[in-house]
Amino acid sequence: MTAPVEADIGRLVVSCTDGPGIVARVSAFLHGRGANIVQSDQFSTGPVGGRFFLRTEFHLPGLAKALPDLERDFASQVARTVGGTFQLRDAAEAPRVVLFVSRYDHCLLDLLWRARRGELPMTVVQVVSNHPDLAADVAGFGVPFAHVPVTRDTKPVAEQRELELLAGRVDLVVLARYMQVLSADFLDRVGVPVINIHHSFLPAFAGAGPYERAKQRGVKLIGATAHYATEDLDEGPIIEQDVVRVSHRAGVAELTRAGADIERAVLARAVRWHCEDRVLVDGRTTVVF
Amino acid sequence: MTAPVEADIGRLVVSCTDGPGIVARVSAFLHGRGANIVQSDQFSTGPVGGRFFLRTEFHLPGLAKALPDLERDFASQVARTVGGTFQLRDAAEAPRVVLFVSRYDHCLLDLLWRARRGELPMTVVQVVSNHPDLAADVAGFGVPFAHVPVTRDTKPVAEQRELELLAGRVDLVVLARYMQVLSADFLDRVGVPVINIHHSFLPAFAGAGPYERAKQRGVKLIGATAHYATEDLDEGPIIEQDVVRVSHRAGVAELTRAGADIERAVLARAVRWHCEDRVLVDGRTTVVF
Amino acid sequence: MTAPVEADIGRLVVSCTDGPGIVARVSAFLHGRGANIVQSDQFSTGPVGGRFFLRTEFHLPGLAKALPDLERDFASQVARTVGGTFQLRDAAEAPRVVLFVSRYDHCLLDLLWRARRGELPMTVVQVVSNHPDLAADVAGFGVPFAHVPVTRDTKPVAEQRELELLAGRVDLVVLARYMQVLSADFLDRVGVPVINIHHSFLPAFAGAGPYERAKQRGVKLIGATAHYATEDLDEGPIIEQDVVRVSHRAGVAELTRAGADIERAVLARAVRWHCEDRVLVDGRTTVVF
Amino acid sequence: MTAPVEADIGRLVVSCTDGPGIVARVSAFLHGRGANIVQSDQFSTGPVGGRFFLRTEFHLPGLAKALPDLERDFASQVARTVGGTFQLRDAAEAPRVVLFVSRYDHCLLDLLWRARRGELPMTVVQVVSNHPDLAADVAGFGVPFAHVPVTRDTKPVAEQRELELLAGRVDLVVLARYMQVLSADFLDRVGVPVINIHHSFLPAFAGAGPYERAKQRGVKLIGATAHYATEDLDEGPIIEQDVVRVSHRAGVAELTRAGADIERAVLARAVRWHCEDRVLVDGRTTVVF
Repeated sequence: MTAPVEADIGRLVVSCTDGPGIVARVSAFLHGRGANIVQSDQFSTGPVGGRFFLRTEFHLPGLAKALPDLERDFASQVARTVGGTFQLRDAAEAPRVVLFVSRYDHCLLDLLWRARRGELPMTVVQVVSNHPDLAADVAGFGVPFAHVPVTRDTKPVAEQRELELLAGRVDLVVLARYMQVLSADFLDRVGVPVINIHHSFLPAFAGAGPYERAKQRGVKLIGATAHYATEDLDEGPIIEQDVVRVSHRAGVAELTRAGADIERAVLARAVRWHCEDRVLVDGRTTVVF
Repeated sequence: MTAPVEADIGRLVVSCTDGPGIVARVSAFLHGRGANIVQSDQFSTGPVGGRFFLRTEFHLPGLAKALPDLERDFASQVARTVGGTFQLRDAAEAPRVVLFVSRYDHCLLDLLWRARRGELPMTVVQVVSNHPDLAADVAGFGVPFAHVPVTRDTKPVAEQRELELLAGRVDLVVLARYMQVLSADFLDRVGVPVINIHHSFLPAFAGAGPYERAKQRGVKLIGATAHYATEDLDEGPIIEQDVVRVSHRAGVAELTRAGADIERAVLARAVRWHCEDRVLVDGRTTVVF
Repeated sequence: MTAPVEADIGRLVVSCTDGPGIVARVSAFLHGRGANIVQSDQFSTGPVGGRFFLRTEFHLPGLAKALPDLERDFASQVARTVGGTFQLRDAAEAPRVVLFVSRYDHCLLDLLWRARRGELPMTVVQVVSNHPDLAADVAGFGVPFAHVPVTRDTKPVAEQRELELLAGRVDLVVLARYMQVLSADFLDRVGVPVINIHHSFLPAFAGAGPYERAKQRGVKLIGATAHYATEDLDEGPIIEQDVVRVSHRAGVAELTRAGADIERAVLARAVRWHCEDRVLVDGRTTVVF
Repeated sequence: MTAPVEADIGRLVVSCTDGPGIVARVSAFLHGRGANIVQSDQFSTGPVGGRFFLRTEFHLPGLAKALPDLERDFASQVARTVGGTFQLRDAAEAPRVVLFVSRYDHCLLDLLWRARRGELPMTVVQVVSNHPDLAADVAGFGVPFAHVPVTRDTKPVAEQRELELLAGRVDLVVLARYMQVLSADFLDRVGVPVINIHHSFLPAFAGAGPYERAKQRGVKLIGATAHYATEDLDEGPIIEQDVVRVSHRAGVAELTRAGADIERAVLARAVRWHCEDRVLVDGRTTVVF
């Protein structure tokens, strides 16, 4: 399942220390190579010595062929001077994504459906689940489904099996309501970003049972948070959040039901933005262009 | 400053243990007294043995005169049977409100302005501040302003002075960004509900510096929470909450500015609902009809 | 596909001219029959001579068996006095629903998915489409799919065929992005409510091409409207509406994509509320409890 | 009343036909003059032959002194090549604004209050009203108030008087619920942009009585629209819109009250964005950076 994208559109993402002339240097480089800037966003935490972030979309006929040279020359002619890190990508090369899920289907089905209708520029190469329940639904989308059961004792073995499934064929892992905590070792070895959806408006109700605790506390809005998974549970950089109004009439079941709509919407936006190279990590937070 | 209200509209609020026939008993009582139910809301946490909450607005010609008898008869004929607590009020009798404020003017001015234009069914009888800054603004609304400075040492004396200012002439205290923590003793002795506005989406960022901490955590929405003040700081029953979207571009100053709009809107709604007898406390939470 | 519901819960809906004592009469009747009111909402457009609307949910052991007698007695003992119309339903009897669709899948799949997971108290008995495209998707949900092609010339025949498909086995028709205008004759003969989703915030952009016109006009929010279908296209009573923010960057394709999320959310809410007997028609508008 | 702004921040706004190298040319020019780009936004309706819009904020020590030369050189070195129009401004030079109002105070007071607390980078030089009602409120903010009555017969004379009041001392006119229609002649002669707030979600309910018509149509959301005033009433380019949810319980008075909150919020955002040079007109629509 791959979404169609425009041809000859490249994306350049830069993170570095701010200083004078970065935009001028980058735009001169692109102009000199025949690229026309279609859209450009930048952000600085402070003009002198702050952190600088740039995302530029450009049109360059023959991009796919030109990309290796472009990358090499940008590294030597621009990046060497401005420092930091950069990434150059062909927008037509959709990231390869593996979805992890347990039993709740709402986030998984929404991502698969959006990918199928061309809303998410990604290729779903695999679904991994610690339960067999959703196999048939996934089959309907023509995506391979791997059932990898996890118990406390088998977790290291299970994670090893998961890493083997992913090896060399994945650019992003999405935890679409995967109810197992991934080990620090897994996160370390997987080598690609991992996006998780948490069913509360973090930092409120981190940890287990957020809807139960939301009910007890009597909050008037419930929310969901998509963030990059890190070793520290529910502490990774937040990509997107949203909330929905609830009343005293809603019990935990109703909160869970209402929350599912927010969870799938928030996760879909976070995954889309990531796949469009819009999300840049800035320490514990993110810049979203 | 008092808002006009319709004549002959009464409000009955009941909190009790649920059981069969409560609505039938209440509506039969009101109908028997010539009252016509204009609006009625009820909520039960469980049909047998749960907590039951009722708010009824009724029209009764000659209400003001009839109210004492109505109250006595409801107590003996209905409340004795269904148990719990009840309150009968003439909607034309606006609650007397005292506003506490420090230096930020946005919540205070918004409440005074809404009261003046008849949006809030309350009479503001006094503004109390630990700073003199807002005296002129308050004078413009024709409301008495008392400057009661507070330091760590003088706090007991200051609170004593505040209690004397309030004694016998207040139905509600509103902390409109009052930056002093009221003592448990004050809350105990004041004898009327106290509504506070906290500048975060509780339980996230309870305590001091919520916007600073929101920036550090990189949340994508900031919020405000109006709640009844209790001994446990920022832990009282929540009346209303709302949020607004922010981006990575917003620094702490911009969060503070954007948050002020949410704070004043949330507090105004909470105060209005309280003054309209819509808010019933249910343990640590509220029912808002 | 049927959603589970609680047993022994009945719903009474009343629309009549307002006057004193209606609530008392209704609640006394229910109490006298052993029913306990679980929730009750009412609304009046004016205490004397206005229109009065009531929705009461009650718990009555053995409801299914008692319903015919209850209905007969309510008609003779209450409805005869208060006038107007009423409806008594067993909440366990899910309405039978037929979904009409053309080629866009988002509204249809969302309704089928919500019904399957028990979020919508309805039984989908049939999907009707003027295109064959979505047959496989519908089959995956185990719902019969009928392809009824429609051209300008065959429309009367097609509508006749549709009416035969529906005859005697449907309580509600939902147009889930069905791109044919149903004739006044069809609406007349179908004999059950028809809910439509229009892809704009009505009354803005009624008629064809709403996203194109929204782009031309440069609106900053786009919306969707669920309403009962009537002879006057896009003029029927509105059940629910919502909007989403868009920027100048969004072209028509992006508006269409963003709008799809709002369309499916708005339609799902409208259908749920209808199936829960929460929507009462009041002339050209609705009361939604 | 002037808001403080950062020193040495300049803003460059460009509207032209799109073509290759515009960003490179602009950023090279600024870099060559010692300016550091702080933020930059651009938008194109199409890479070849589309309309191109750019807004750049830059830091340049000694800006105020350098501005005339900068402007002249940009015109000859860049604008001559890329065509279109441009504007270079010192962010410290707050636009001079005249507010028009009739009797409703909510938009006026909110703008004055936001200007006083430094939220709006503008200098309010005059309030003009066709009614004397708000004179005292305006005086409290230290802003001159001119009462210019308008009747059908005196309208040309009144508009002449208004134009004289404004002549040479205004950069923006804001109609903060000014209930007179300004003539095409006035709009032509005033020579600066005029922002109006309309109390509906345009294009729904253009013209008079929008809340009455919203009630009749039974919409579930009401809104407000800030737009540039043009000859065609309620047809000018939209700058900002927002909505708030309402229920069947809200009568016209309640819609009006709830709408006031949206009106003042929408107008304040539109005025702020305009004063920050974020709003670029694109035919009948706007680009808002």
